[in-house]
Amino acid sequence: MRPVTAEIITIGDEILFGQITDTNTQWIGAELSAIGVRTVRKSSVGDQRAAILSILSEAEQRADIVILTGGLGPTKDDITKTTLCEYFNTGQAIHPEALVFVTEFFQKRGRELTEINKLQASLPLNATYLPNTRGTAPGMWFYERGTVFVSLPGVPHEMKGLMTDEVLPRIKSTFPLPVIHHKMLRTIGIGESFLAERIEAWEDALPSHIKLAYLPSMGMVKLRLTATGESLEVLQAEVNAEIAKVLPLISTYVYGYDGDEIEDVVARLLRESGHSLSIAESCTGGYLSHLITKIPGSSAYFQAGVVSYSNAAKMNTLDVQSATLENYGAVSEPTIREMAEGVRERFGTTFGLATSGIAGPDGGTTEKPVGTIWIALASPEQTITKKLTLGGDRLQNIHQTALSLLNLLRKVLVGLPLD
Amino acid sequence: MRPVTAEIITIGDEILFGQITDTNTQWIGAELSAIGVRTVRKSSVGDQRAAILSILSEAEQRADIVILTGGLGPTKDDITKTTLCEYFNTGQAIHPEALVFVTEFFQKRGRELTEINKLQASLPLNATYLPNTRGTAPGMWFYERGTVFVSLPGVPHEMKGLMTDEVLPRIKSTFPLPVIHHKMLRTIGIGESFLAERIEAWEDALPSHIKLAYLPSMGMVKLRLTATGESLEVLQAEVNAEIAKVLPLISTYVYGYDGDEIEDVVARLLRESGHSLSIAESCTGGYLSHLITKIPGSSAYFQAGVVSYSNAAKMNTLDVQSATLENYGAVSEPTIREMAEGVRERFGTTFGLATSGIAGPDGGTTEKPVGTIWIALASPEQTITKKLTLGGDRLQNIHQTALSLLNLLRKVLVGLPLD
Repeated sequence: MRPVTAEIITIGDEILFGQITDTNTQWIGAELSAIGVRTVRKSSVGDQRAAILSILSEAEQRADIVILTGGLGPTKDDITKTTLCEYFNTGQAIHPEALVFVTEFFQKRGRELTEINKLQASLPLNATYLPNTRGTAPGMWFYERGTVFVSLPGVPHEMKGLMTDEVLPRIKSTFPLPVIHHKMLRTIGIGESFLAERIEAWEDALPSHIKLAYLPSMGMVKLRLTATGESLEVLQAEVNAEIAKVLPLISTYVYGYDGDEIEDVVARLLRESGHSLSIAESCTGGYLSHLITKIPGSSAYFQAGVVSYSNAAKMNTLDVQSATLENYGAVSEPTIREMAEGVRERFGTTFGLATSGIAGPDGGTTEKPVGTIWIALASPEQTITKKLTLGGDRLQNIHQTALSLLNLLRKVLVGLPLD
Repeated sequence: MRPVTAEIITIGDEILFGQITDTNTQWIGAELSAIGVRTVRKSSVGDQRAAILSILSEAEQRADIVILTGGLGPTKDDITKTTLCEYFNTGQAIHPEALVFVTEFFQKRGRELTEINKLQASLPLNATYLPNTRGTAPGMWFYERGTVFVSLPGVPHEMKGLMTDEVLPRIKSTFPLPVIHHKMLRTIGIGESFLAERIEAWEDALPSHIKLAYLPSMGMVKLRLTATGESLEVLQAEVNAEIAKVLPLISTYVYGYDGDEIEDVVARLLRESGHSLSIAESCTGGYLSHLITKIPGSSAYFQAGVVSYSNAAKMNTLDVQSATLENYGAVSEPTIREMAEGVRERFGTTFGLATSGIAGPDGGTTEKPVGTIWIALASPEQTITKKLTLGGDRLQNIHQTALSLLNLLRKVLVGLPLD
């Protein structure tokens, strides 16, 4: 079976000029992949008529499905709709259903329906109206000359709602789709080339319909297995069998699968074990608490965090001894130990975590350069302290410190050996 | 003068399948824009020979500069280098300088130089070697048939280092560049269409060489002015004159310019005023402290934060009265008032900020649905409290709450009227 292919196009000068972050194409690519549609290209072009017309005609030749986002706003610089009319050689008219919706949208919010906003309800004559319940620009579906074109607003939550409610179901009922199964192993604490050498023989022996990719990111490498075939059950069994073979080679490094972030894994372990947590942060400045509390239901195990930037806060709120700070400084083994034990004691939790270091760019000394960071974990049995020597910028050092401490907590919760 | 154009190409299945976030193209687009190179298209293709060859030949026809990132890793799925050799019809050889570097790179880290890693020093014969001091894959510069091709590793900090140290200076000395001047006004608290109506007459009167774009994001709309001409001084003066005209129409909404985030603006105002800050966070769970502390030098005004998830932490660390929590609940005006005043008192700061609410997805009631959030600011003069009713998911509600409180602090620091 020939794979069904898609091309994703974002429209907007702001993307080309690097002034906004495009998160849409990543999300769309993942959703298409999950239903067996292969994205063959992603492109961004500016808000220019000629550029949009040209990419539409190129994409029509390459892909079965062309998904456009952006350029549907009410302002003058948004020209996607008029350009689609030109491309399809058609006019546009107010769509009655869309007009009712946009009118109610403004009424509900007690805002006046302006002439500009009314135009949001105007659609190309060959478009199928896709209702957008989250905003004023409707989605549009076209099926012309054997190719599907979809035009969606660029606002992420509006685009996502339209994709989920309207576009993906229509794609599934329009095209016969092959079965693709992805499985991701997520590792922490080992570099890409070392991982590759460790699993080389296994990789070389993979069957040809199962592909492996290495996806490195800060302090982590993800291994993605992609299997293509006809039966999801068969593919899942084959991929699981491959994972069972490779896991013993890298087990201490594997912290999770698929969409798991390390904070999700730690959250699950805390929930299952019934243990509780408190956090004392200096150099991470609240970021570690944020990683924990952004997970729904975290109040079940997270009691409190203290961002003890000043020495006074370390003494008053965490009971760090002034002598310790004087003799060893805030970035030291004795201080981090007292911080972790102090926060654990103060809030009566199973575990107390602590960070203190020089995240940069300023504050480094010869003895303690930027990137010198202490982390600690206090438990009922012991207090573990560890010194990190990091080389990133301020934000990278903050992120890396939080990940290292989460990984330490994960190892303790799982009962893995500490290195 | 014809504009010098660029096309940015990312290579990697992981981008098409939506498994990693591409931050590189945004950064490259912004850097090119800043030196007057106009990015005309961005594309992503997979790790497939045919797709890479095809986009190389298309891009060569469209742009003066073609920048590729990704596919230079040491593993088998990375094929950019061999495909470039095929495209240019050339062989490759170990580059002596690159080999010395890669050997030392591994020596310094006490790691063995594997055969796989040695191949990182092999380059196409027509490539100019661009030393990558941050990793093992060198950058490459090609000048063929009047077009510049640049191939860079996909790891963001390696790519950025190579762009800054090698690629941008070479582009500047290779091409005669026009002058482009961007200026961005950043607004908060007004929707795109209302902003558009308010400034419509001004927008219509803009000269043709100055373009306006609306860039909406959560709770904010950025207005970008782009002027093209021959003299930077003239363009700056013209853009400043336009800003002077539009500012009176929208002054309370404008919080900053260009790359300013609201936390940067607040940080500057705190530093300049000599005031200090402490924060009590419930629903934002450390995120607000993180926004403040991710800014270098924040220890000058930020004393401490408390993430008081449990009621016990609210009472013990912030001196919230147990009667207040019992009578009104944690998400209430009396509690948020005591939290802000308590944290300010406890840490002796000029301002105390506090958040408490139901970020979701669980925990809502009929009386206090998900999205019900209280924020407060305690100052020497008064305590301001405000109820927000938000409609996003957990993370959006956390972000929006933090932004609202930062904007409240900004207004107090600037002396703007509070609404």
